Amino acid sequence: MTVNVLFAAGETRWEQYRAPLDEAFAEAGIDADLSLNHPPDTVDYIVFAPNGPIDDFTPYTRTKAVLNLWAGVEKIVGSRTLTQPLCRMVDSGLEEGMIEWVTGHVLRHHLGIDAHINGQDGVWRNGIIPPLARDRRVGVLGLGALGRACAEALAALRFDVAGWSRSQKDIPGIACHSGDDGLSAVLERAEILVLLMPLTPHTENVIDAGTLARMPRGAMIVNPARGPLIDDDALLAALDSGQIGHATLDVFRDEPLPPEHPYWAHPRVTVTPHIASETRPASAARVIAENVRRGEAGESFLFEVDRDAGY
Amino acid sequence: MTVNVLFAAGETRWEQYRAPLDEAFAEAGIDADLSLNHPPDTVDYIVFAPNGPIDDFTPYTRTKAVLNLWAGVEKIVGSRTLTQPLCRMVDSGLEEGMIEWVTGHVLRHHLGIDAHINGQDGVWRNGIIPPLARDRRVGVLGLGALGRACAEALAALRFDVAGWSRSQKDIPGIACHSGDDGLSAVLERAEILVLLMPLTPHTENVIDAGTLARMPRGAMIVNPARGPLIDDDALLAALDSGQIGHATLDVFRDEPLPPEHPYWAHPRVTVTPHIASETRPASAARVIAENVRRGEAGESFLFEVDRDAGY
Repeated sequence: MTVNVLFAAGETRWEQYRAPLDEAFAEAGIDADLSLNHPPDTVDYIVFAPNGPIDDFTPYTRTKAVLNLWAGVEKIVGSRTLTQPLCRMVDSGLEEGMIEWVTGHVLRHHLGIDAHINGQDGVWRNGIIPPLARDRRVGVLGLGALGRACAEALAALRFDVAGWSRSQKDIPGIACHSGDDGLSAVLERAEILVLLMPLTPHTENVIDAGTLARMPRGAMIVNPARGPLIDDDALLAALDSGQIGHATLDVFRDEPLPPEHPYWAHPRVTVTPHIASETRPASAARVIAENVRRGEAGESFLFEVDRDAGY
Repeated sequence: MTVNVLFAAGETRWEQYRAPLDEAFAEAGIDADLSLNHPPDTVDYIVFAPNGPIDDFTPYTRTKAVLNLWAGVEKIVGSRTLTQPLCRMVDSGLEEGMIEWVTGHVLRHHLGIDAHINGQDGVWRNGIIPPLARDRRVGVLGLGALGRACAEALAALRFDVAGWSRSQKDIPGIACHSGDDGLSAVLERAEILVLLMPLTPHTENVIDAGTLARMPRGAMIVNPARGPLIDDDALLAALDSGQIGHATLDVFRDEPLPPEHPYWAHPRVTVTPHIASETRPASAARVIAENVRRGEAGESFLFEVDRDAGY
């Protein structure tokens, strides 16, 4: 029997999610009719995002579950009209995407790929042999779920990885540090530094003139975490002086990064538009399809929200 | 006691190897005097390459071993004046470097990094979400030591990897194919194709108009193996038509690639100067130091050549 799935997460996302959802339903063996426009009393499941079209869930009388597209449910969990089960999104794709973006850019800087991309001038420069990853010292600041996963992926590629976190961690293959002395130890050896800390009052501007000066000359910085971890003026000064060789930045104090911001034009900066840790349509669609499958089979839902706890 | 090590591998390599060798000797606890100019009758070990200064080993009366800097010993193994033990180089760095170059360039194409490097124009384009590695189909042609190692590294990053080899292989996590039908199966799904075959009469021009046409439109090719695996005219035509989206080429029929070759100027080609699989000074130096340590300790040498077998 056909399952009616209402996509109530906005028309922009419809373009990104329609094909992945149809594919995920097909893979899961579900005959789903995914639409922006099912009449409320015919809807079996709702794919939901907070800024979508639904405020009142009362007319959705036969709906078996509301499947949130994001991890956060703070805007919907208190709705008095929502009596159906609510599931949040736990997207393995977010962590996987972060690992891919971080390893890709660390390898790019390690191998000096930019010089090849920008140096297609007919001159065969084969005298520069980059060191092996085992001889390349990488620092990772922040060893939470994402930081740890990225540090482990880099260590698996044989990079010489040291990590720092506020509380001391113990991760096989990673030289783990904590505290102020530990931060200095990681910075002083980091030829490539990856920021994966949360933004807190303690971590704001952790990368400032003082910490930049402690890094090896020509070190490279990769930031897919939060813009305010970096004192932008201090970083620009360090890039201008050559103390920092390159910065690849995915996050900024103001996003979108304004077109007149000096990062865009700086020859030693690569701006990427906050793409390192997106929820991915393909993996998110699989979570949605799995929950529809479970609902049709009478099984319990994945990631169902505890309405009293609020998450 | 100081061990006298003669560097007889050419003055160009002296610049690359001097510091790594000194470091490797220090790490191994060997008090070595590394020089280009020890008198022959004072030399304990010779670091050797075929185009270096030594033809006649007769005056090296106290030399305990000749340590070849490369894997191939065909130019020295038949020398009638060489009575000392001869060791060839087995450099783990060659395989590690290949893995790093291949994963770096596959991630680069997977993530679309070139568009960011070349697109620092102030426009925040965050609507393009790349697929996850698990949804990116990579093909690896050739599953010998290097091909297998690269395929496994890509699978560890969760890429959807299929491989082809002449004889059927069985590698966990890799969809292994062989034969003509198997080649088509790998080509037809390869969004990114990595060439790691040996060059034989069977593999020359394996990438020609016919095989290129079987790949998905816009596929990317990465070749760190041998230049003649590719029919250059056919590849250039496929790049011009858009059938192939990009080619990153490290090897060529003629090396250095002549400055007038169309690959240099083609907007969809990245030339790198045969750097993917170099013997690396740091890891090669560790092999040399280990053999000196073994010689001084009276232990048997690593990778000692069987003079009758010739390798």
